[in-house]
Amino acid sequence: MNPDDSSFRPTRTERDSLGEVEVPAERMWGAQTERSRQNFRIGGERMPDELIRAFAVLKRSAAEANEELGVLPPALAACIATAAQEVADGHWPEEFPLVVWQTGSGTQTNMNLNEVIARRAAALLQASAGANAGAARVHPNDHVNASQSSNDSFPTAMHIAAVQQTHGALLPALAYLQETLEDKVAAFADVVKVGRTHLQDAVPLTLGQEFSGYAAQAADARTRITAALERALAIPQGGTAVGTGLNAPAGFAAAFAAALSRHTGLTFIPAANRFALQAAHDALVDLSGALNTSASALLKIARDFMLLGSGPRAGLGELLLPANEPGSSIMPGKVNPTQAEALAMVCTRVIGNHTTITLANGLGTLDLNAYKPVIAYSLLQSIRLLGDAVHSFATHMVAGVEADRARIAELLARSLMPVTALNPHIGYDRAAEIAKLAMREGLSLRDAALASGHVTAKQFDQWVVPSDMTGDC
Amino acid sequence: MNPDDSSFRPTRTERDSLGEVEVPAERMWGAQTERSRQNFRIGGERMPDELIRAFAVLKRSAAEANEELGVLPPALAACIATAAQEVADGHWPEEFPLVVWQTGSGTQTNMNLNEVIARRAAALLQASAGANAGAARVHPNDHVNASQSSNDSFPTAMHIAAVQQTHGALLPALAYLQETLEDKVAAFADVVKVGRTHLQDAVPLTLGQEFSGYAAQAADARTRITAALERALAIPQGGTAVGTGLNAPAGFAAAFAAALSRHTGLTFIPAANRFALQAAHDALVDLSGALNTSASALLKIARDFMLLGSGPRAGLGELLLPANEPGSSIMPGKVNPTQAEALAMVCTRVIGNHTTITLANGLGTLDLNAYKPVIAYSLLQSIRLLGDAVHSFATHMVAGVEADRARIAELLARSLMPVTALNPHIGYDRAAEIAKLAMREGLSLRDAALASGHVTAKQFDQWVVPSDMTGDC
Amino acid sequence: MNPDDSSFRPTRTERDSLGEVEVPAERMWGAQTERSRQNFRIGGERMPDELIRAFAVLKRSAAEANEELGVLPPALAACIATAAQEVADGHWPEEFPLVVWQTGSGTQTNMNLNEVIARRAAALLQASAGANAGAARVHPNDHVNASQSSNDSFPTAMHIAAVQQTHGALLPALAYLQETLEDKVAAFADVVKVGRTHLQDAVPLTLGQEFSGYAAQAADARTRITAALERALAIPQGGTAVGTGLNAPAGFAAAFAAALSRHTGLTFIPAANRFALQAAHDALVDLSGALNTSASALLKIARDFMLLGSGPRAGLGELLLPANEPGSSIMPGKVNPTQAEALAMVCTRVIGNHTTITLANGLGTLDLNAYKPVIAYSLLQSIRLLGDAVHSFATHMVAGVEADRARIAELLARSLMPVTALNPHIGYDRAAEIAKLAMREGLSLRDAALASGHVTAKQFDQWVVPSDMTGDC
Amino acid sequence: MNPDDSSFRPTRTERDSLGEVEVPAERMWGAQTERSRQNFRIGGERMPDELIRAFAVLKRSAAEANEELGVLPPALAACIATAAQEVADGHWPEEFPLVVWQTGSGTQTNMNLNEVIARRAAALLQASAGANAGAARVHPNDHVNASQSSNDSFPTAMHIAAVQQTHGALLPALAYLQETLEDKVAAFADVVKVGRTHLQDAVPLTLGQEFSGYAAQAADARTRITAALERALAIPQGGTAVGTGLNAPAGFAAAFAAALSRHTGLTFIPAANRFALQAAHDALVDLSGALNTSASALLKIARDFMLLGSGPRAGLGELLLPANEPGSSIMPGKVNPTQAEALAMVCTRVIGNHTTITLANGLGTLDLNAYKPVIAYSLLQSIRLLGDAVHSFATHMVAGVEADRARIAELLARSLMPVTALNPHIGYDRAAEIAKLAMREGLSLRDAALASGHVTAKQFDQWVVPSDMTGDC
Repeated sequence: MNPDDSSFRPTRTERDSLGEVEVPAERMWGAQTERSRQNFRIGGERMPDELIRAFAVLKRSAAEANEELGVLPPALAACIATAAQEVADGHWPEEFPLVVWQTGSGTQTNMNLNEVIARRAAALLQASAGANAGAARVHPNDHVNASQSSNDSFPTAMHIAAVQQTHGALLPALAYLQETLEDKVAAFADVVKVGRTHLQDAVPLTLGQEFSGYAAQAADARTRITAALERALAIPQGGTAVGTGLNAPAGFAAAFAAALSRHTGLTFIPAANRFALQAAHDALVDLSGALNTSASALLKIARDFMLLGSGPRAGLGELLLPANEPGSSIMPGKVNPTQAEALAMVCTRVIGNHTTITLANGLGTLDLNAYKPVIAYSLLQSIRLLGDAVHSFATHMVAGVEADRARIAELLARSLMPVTALNPHIGYDRAAEIAKLAMREGLSLRDAALASGHVTAKQFDQWVVPSDMTGDC
Repeated sequence: MNPDDSSFRPTRTERDSLGEVEVPAERMWGAQTERSRQNFRIGGERMPDELIRAFAVLKRSAAEANEELGVLPPALAACIATAAQEVADGHWPEEFPLVVWQTGSGTQTNMNLNEVIARRAAALLQASAGANAGAARVHPNDHVNASQSSNDSFPTAMHIAAVQQTHGALLPALAYLQETLEDKVAAFADVVKVGRTHLQDAVPLTLGQEFSGYAAQAADARTRITAALERALAIPQGGTAVGTGLNAPAGFAAAFAAALSRHTGLTFIPAANRFALQAAHDALVDLSGALNTSASALLKIARDFMLLGSGPRAGLGELLLPANEPGSSIMPGKVNPTQAEALAMVCTRVIGNHTTITLANGLGTLDLNAYKPVIAYSLLQSIRLLGDAVHSFATHMVAGVEADRARIAELLARSLMPVTALNPHIGYDRAAEIAKLAMREGLSLRDAALASGHVTAKQFDQWVVPSDMTGDC
Repeated sequence: MNPDDSSFRPTRTERDSLGEVEVPAERMWGAQTERSRQNFRIGGERMPDELIRAFAVLKRSAAEANEELGVLPPALAACIATAAQEVADGHWPEEFPLVVWQTGSGTQTNMNLNEVIARRAAALLQASAGANAGAARVHPNDHVNASQSSNDSFPTAMHIAAVQQTHGALLPALAYLQETLEDKVAAFADVVKVGRTHLQDAVPLTLGQEFSGYAAQAADARTRITAALERALAIPQGGTAVGTGLNAPAGFAAAFAAALSRHTGLTFIPAANRFALQAAHDALVDLSGALNTSASALLKIARDFMLLGSGPRAGLGELLLPANEPGSSIMPGKVNPTQAEALAMVCTRVIGNHTTITLANGLGTLDLNAYKPVIAYSLLQSIRLLGDAVHSFATHMVAGVEADRARIAELLARSLMPVTALNPHIGYDRAAEIAKLAMREGLSLRDAALASGHVTAKQFDQWVVPSDMTGDC
Repeated sequence: MNPDDSSFRPTRTERDSLGEVEVPAERMWGAQTERSRQNFRIGGERMPDELIRAFAVLKRSAAEANEELGVLPPALAACIATAAQEVADGHWPEEFPLVVWQTGSGTQTNMNLNEVIARRAAALLQASAGANAGAARVHPNDHVNASQSSNDSFPTAMHIAAVQQTHGALLPALAYLQETLEDKVAAFADVVKVGRTHLQDAVPLTLGQEFSGYAAQAADARTRITAALERALAIPQGGTAVGTGLNAPAGFAAAFAAALSRHTGLTFIPAANRFALQAAHDALVDLSGALNTSASALLKIARDFMLLGSGPRAGLGELLLPANEPGSSIMPGKVNPTQAEALAMVCTRVIGNHTTITLANGLGTLDLNAYKPVIAYSLLQSIRLLGDAVHSFATHMVAGVEADRARIAELLARSLMPVTALNPHIGYDRAAEIAKLAMREGLSLRDAALASGHVTAKQFDQWVVPSDMTGDC
C-alpha cells in the first residue's frame, strides 16, 4: 500500500489534461504522478531505483540531443540536464513514489520524471536568470519530454538500467566467483576422491576436477550473459509513440545514443527496427534467459556444496564449510550451509522471474507491449539478487571452504568402482562379477578381485590405482 | 544491499555460541541478527512485515502455552507475551532488518524475534520488578524460544501470515470484485451483442451474460482459495527440530494452537503429521496454486476489458472505460485501460511466484525444507498483490465501466453469425451458403438469406431474432 | 510430421462448406478431418486417445439426449449411439489422425468424431434398414453434432477424460503408494536414526517417522486432487457456440449429463455458468495445480530416496534400494535409484505442463478459450505420467526398500546433535559449548559432555537417550 | 504403457550382469533393454527418434575413432560402423522401444543402441567371414561401447540431435517466416493505418512498418538461436564415466569429434571442460532459452494476427486471413485464425518445456546430471514443434494474408490521435483540449481543431497529414 495521505497536510493545486489535482505541498511531483499514487494502491514495490536513475540519465541525454538539434534553447536544455543529473546522482529519492503496478507503458513513471525534473529545472533556470526574471516555466511534456514518448523512453530506460547493473555488478560478481573457484581448483588438484553419479559411488576424480566443472559453469555464464548484454545495447529511443519517430527531429536517435554512451561509458546504439523494440522486449527476455540458465547452473553448484559439506558426522563430509553463524535455535553447535541456501533461494526467484518476464513479453499486443514495468521490476530484481548472492557465496562460502582430506581418503579406500579400470583387461562381465562379490561379502575391492581368480595381486596393484584414473583432462 | 554500517556509530558487544559481535548500540537485536545482517548483503527485500507480525503472535502464543504447561514462570511468560504483542502491533519496525536471502530455515529471523523480544521482555520484567531488582535476564533461546525450534515455528508463522492475509484482504477483495461484476450483470442484462469466438464474430449473447462468466470466475476463485486456506490451518508447531517434539512438553501443540486461535480468531489446529509440514510445504504450494489459477482467470478478465474497451474510434469500443489519468506523455487526450494493465501485470507476477514456490518446495531434502524464506516472501507477495490489484480493479475499473449501447447495436446489426439460427430449419450446409454469399457480396445477412432462395422474408424475420438467441441461461 | 499421402493411393471426393476435398478411399473420415490433416503438419502428437474415447462417450450421450428430447428420430439416434460406443471401445483407432496443434477450439477433432461416427452410423442404419433401403444419410453436423458445438463439447470431453483418468488411474496409484509407504512406516517404526536438517546432522527420529511424512504427503495429494476433481464434474455441455445454448432444446444439458453419468459411473452435472467454462478452463488449471503440488511433493520424496540410498560405500547408505537393472554401461556392478529418477523426471514434466496450462488458460479471449487442445494434451499427459510413475515407483522401489540397520546405528552413534536433549537441563549456551568441544577435539558427545564439567556421567546417560528423543508423535 | 508381452510369444534367453532375462525371440535387443521395458511402464513417450538416430551416428563415429586409435580391430570396427549407420538411416525402427521415463542417465537407451548394434554387427561380421567362420561375438559394452560411457555419450547424442534439428529444420523455418514477412513489408509499405498502443488508438504508422517489427523479431530469433547453437557444438564425448576419460585412449575425444563432424557436416568440438558438460547441461538450457524467447516473440506475432484479422464485421478487420477450413461445427460460414492458434499453442508448450528443462538441469547432483532423458525429450519437442509450426504459419497464414485497405482507411479517417502532430505547434495541453472536445462532441479531429480556435483550417491541413507521420524508419 502506498502511504496514506493525511488530509491535514498542506497541498498545492496542480493540473493536467484531465483537470486539477491536489498534491502535497512539499513534494516536487505534479498532477500525473499524484493521480497514479492515488489510483494504484497496489503492493509496496516502488519502481526500482536503478530504473529511476537510468531514466534520469536518459532525460539528460535527451535534453542534450534536443539542444544539439535545435528543439530546445541551450539555457533550458542545460537546466533540464542539470536537474536530470541530480536525479541520476540519487538526489530527491523521495520524489519517486510510484509503484510498479501502474500503467503498462510506464507512462506514469515517465511523467514522474518529467514533472520532478521540470520543477527542478524551472528553479535552476530562475536562479540562473537572476532576481529580475519572471517565473520560469518548464513544461513536463513539451520540454522535458521533448522528442520522446513513454513508449520509446521507458523501454530505453529498461535497457540502460539492465545493461548497467549487469555490467557493473553481476558480471564482476561472476568473475569473482570464477576466480575463487579456480583458486580451489589449484588447491584441490591433488585430492583424489570418489566420483558420484546418480548419487552412487563411481570412478575416482580429483576434487580439483569437480571444482573445475563449477568454474567452467561460471565462465560459461559470463559468456552467455555478455552475449545477451551486447544484443541489449540497441535501444528504441527516437521511435516516440509507435516507432515512427513522430515529433522527434531527424537525427534524434543518433544524437541521443551518442550522448547516452558518453554518460554511461557503454556503447548504446539506435535499434535497426524500433517497432520490434517498443512492441516487444525480446532482447530483455533473452537477457533474463541467460540469467535463468545461470540460475540453474548456480542451483546445481550451491546444492553440491550442501551435499559435499553434509555432516559433520553422518553425511558425506568431504568439504569443511565456513562456520559463519550458529545454525539452529534449538540444536546447539549446529552449523549450516547458509550461503548455499541463500544462493539457491535466489536461483528459484530468478527462475520464477523468468516465467513472469517470458509471459509478460508474450502478452503484448500490436504497437506497444504494455507489461513494461513488471518486466523491468522482475529483470532488475534478478540481476541484483544474482549479483549480490553470487558475491556473497564466493566470499563467505567458496573462499573459505576446505577439503577434509582424511575423510575423502577414507571414502575412496572403501569404494568399489575403481573396478572399472579392469574392463580393458578382463572385460565388463568379469569386472561386474568382482564388484558384486565385494558387495555381497563385504570385501574390499582388492580382496574380491583376488578371490575371483580373474586377476593376480600384481596385476591388480598395477591396474587399479585411483590416482591414475583421473586423467589429464 | 543492507544499509551500510558506519564504523563511527556506537556499538555494544553481544555474544552467541560462536563468540562476540558488535551490535549498533541503539538497536534491540542481538548477536545472531547482527551476524546475518553482515553475512547476507543480498538484495533489499526484507522479511515481509506480515510474517514478522505473525511470528510475534506465535511467540506470544508460545509463551502462554509454556506458562500453562509449567515451562516458564508466569511473570516471565507474561513479559514475553507483552513484548511479543508489541511487535505484533507494529511497534519496533526498525528492529527487523534481515533480508529474505538468509538461511533457508529462517532461523536468523526466528532469532531476530527471539532477541528483540527477549531484550524488551527483560526491560518490562525489570520495570515490573521495581527499583530494587537486579538486571532481569531473558534468554532468547531458553525462554523466548522455549519448546520451539525455527524448524517448526518459522513454517507455522508462514501459515499464520498466509492465512491471515488471504482471509483478511484477498478474499474480501475477490468478494468485492464479484459483487461489482454482478451489479454489471444486472445492468447489462438486456444488452444483446455480438459474441466472439477465436476473436471472430459469433452468435449473439448479452453483455450481462459475458459479465456473468467473469462473476462466476471470481466466485470460483473464492471457493478454491477458501478450500486451500482451510487445509492450511494445520500447523507443525510442537514438532521442534525435526518433527518429534523433542524438548517440547506433552500437550504443547494443542495448548499453542488454542492460544493462537484465540489471538487470531482463526481455528488453527495441530498437524496430524508434523514431519510432512516441516520437511515440505505442500499446503502452501497448494494455496499458491489456487492463487495461480485465480491469476490465470483474472488475466483473462483483465484482457477482455482491454479488448472490449479498445478504441475509442478504431477498436471494438463496446465498453466505455473510466478515464482515470491522461494516458500518454505524447498523445494528447489518450485514455488507457491502466487498471486492467496493472492487474494483468500482477497476474504475471503471481504466476512467476508460483513457479518459484513449486520449485522451492520440490528442492527440500530429508527432515527440513530449507527454502522457507523464499516461499514465504513469494507467497505473501502474491497474496498482497492480488488482493490490492483486485480491489483497485473493482473500484477504479469495473464499478465505473459503461456499455456503449449504440456501438454494440451497430456491430450486432452488421454481424452474419445469427445465420446459425437457421440450422435447425434449413441445415448447416445451406446456412453456410447464405453466410458466404453475404461475405462475398457485402450483403446483410437478411438480404443474402432472401437472395439464396432458402428462406422467405417472413421465415427469416421469425427465425433470426438476435435477442431470442441468448437463451435463458 | 504427418505421413505424406502418396498420390497413387485411391481417394474419394468429400465436400464441406468450403468445397471438395480428396480423402483416402479406405478411411472413414471426411472433408474437414482431411483439411486439418493437410494444413497442420506440426509435430506428431496426436490428440490423446483418452480424449477421443471420452468424446465418443459424449457423442453417444448427446445422441440419447437428442432422442429423448425429440431432436433425432430413435433409429438414427440409436445408430449414432452404437457407432459412438464402438469408438469409445477403441475400435477404429486409425481413424483419428489429427494432431494437437490444430484449431484452438478443437473443432477439427470434433468434426473428426462427427464424420467418422456419421459414416459408421450410416452403414449401421443401412444395414438395419435391409436390402431395399436407399443409401442412409447421416450428417456430421446436423445429426451427430445436433444440439452441440465444438465450443461446449470439446471442453466437456476434456473434463470427462481428465476426470476418468484421474479417478481410474492416478488416484488408485497414489493410494497404492500411500499404502506401500505405510507398510514401511510400520516396518521401520523402531529404527532410530540421525535426523538431518539443511543436510546437516540433527536430532534423532525414527525411519518410520520419516516415512510417515512421505505417507502423509501422499495422503494429502489424494485429498487435494479429489477436491479438484469434484469441482471438475461441472460441464458446459448445452451451451453450444457461446454458452447461450442456441439450437439446443430446453432440457438438453440435464438430459445429457444424466446420460453421461450413466455411461461413466461418475456424477457429471451441468455447470451453473456455462460462459465461464467455455471461455476459460479454470477448473482444469485447478486440477493441474493439484498435480503440480503433488509433483513438488513427489520430487522431494524421490530425491530423499536417492539421498538415503546413496552409496554403497561412500554415501549415506541408510536405505538399501532394490537392484532392478545394471546401472552403468562402463562401471561394472553399479546399481542406481532409477525408479526415483524416472519419477523425478516425470515431476519436472508435470511442473512444466502446469506452466503451459496456466498460460494457455490466461491467454483466452472473450467467449472462447482457443487453447483447448494444448490444455487437454498437457493435462492428460500429466495425469497419465504421474499415475504410471507413481505406480512404478511404489512397485519397484518403495515396496522393495530395506533399512540398513547397522549403518544407521553406526551413524547415530557418531552424531553429536543428541546434545539438544541437554538444553532443558543446562541451557542452550552450555550445550553448544559441549558440541563444539566434541567437534574440535574429535570426541564422542558423551566424552565431550563429561569433559566439559557441565554434566555427570549419570546425568548424561539419563538425559541423552536417542530412542527417547523421537517422541510419540 | 509399454505394449504387454504375451507369454505365448517365443522368447530367447539373454543375460547381463544381473542374470538371465527372457527377450522376445524376434527382437534384436538384449537383456538390459528388456529389463528397462519391463520396469518402466510409464507413459508412451518413446525416446525421440531424432535422438536414436543421432546416437547411432555417435556409435559409428566412436567405432571409427576406436579403430583409428587401435582399440578395436578394423573388421570389427567396420561392422559396428555399418550397423550403426543402418540405425542412423532409420532401419530397425521397432528395435528402440524404451520410453523417456527410465534411468536419468539414459544408460538404458545407450545399452539399447549397444545391444542392437552389437547383434547386427555380429551378423555382418559373420556374413563377411564366410561359411567356415564360427559365431562372431560382438559385445555391447566391450566393443560397441568401447571408450565410452552413457555419461558422456548420452549427452553428446543430445547435443548432436538438438544441433541437427535446429540447424536442419528450425532455422530454415524461421528464415522462411522472415522472408514471407518481408514480402508483406514491401506489399504493405504504403498502407497507412491507425497505430494502437494499450489497444487504444494511437498515431499512424504503415502496415508495412508493423510487419517490419515482426520480421525483425524473426531475424533476432535466428540470431539468438544461432548463437546458442554454436555454443552447443562443444561435446563431452571422451569423458567416459565422470569426465576423467578413464578407459578411453588418449586422443579419443579429438578423433571422435573429427569423425562426427565428417558424418554430420557440423563442426563439433571436444569440450574444454567435460566435468561441466556431464554434470550439467547449461548449453542446452541456453538453447531452450533461445527457443523460449522466440516462443514469446511468436506468441505476440500470432496474437497480433488474430487481432488484426478479427471480424469479419465486428472486429478490427484490417487483415484478411486465408480461409483454410470451415471454422465452426455449429456456425455456418465462420472462418478462424487457426494457424495462429496452432502456433500460439505451440508457444505455450515451448515455454512450459523450458520450465521443465531449467528445473531438470538445476536438479542435477555432483558428477552427473541424472535428468538427461526429460531434457532431451522436452528440448527436441520444442525444436520440432517450433520448426513445424513456424513453417505452417508462414505457409498457410502469412503468405496468404491481405490488407483490407478500405477498412484500414475508414478507421484511420475516424481516428483522433493524429492530433499529436499539433504538439510541436500548439503544445500538448491545447492539443489535448482538441482531442477531448472531439470525443465529447463526436466530432472529427479537423472539426474539433477548428472549433477550438487553436489552429486555422490551413494550418490543420498542413500539419495533420497521417501519411507524413510515419517517418522514414
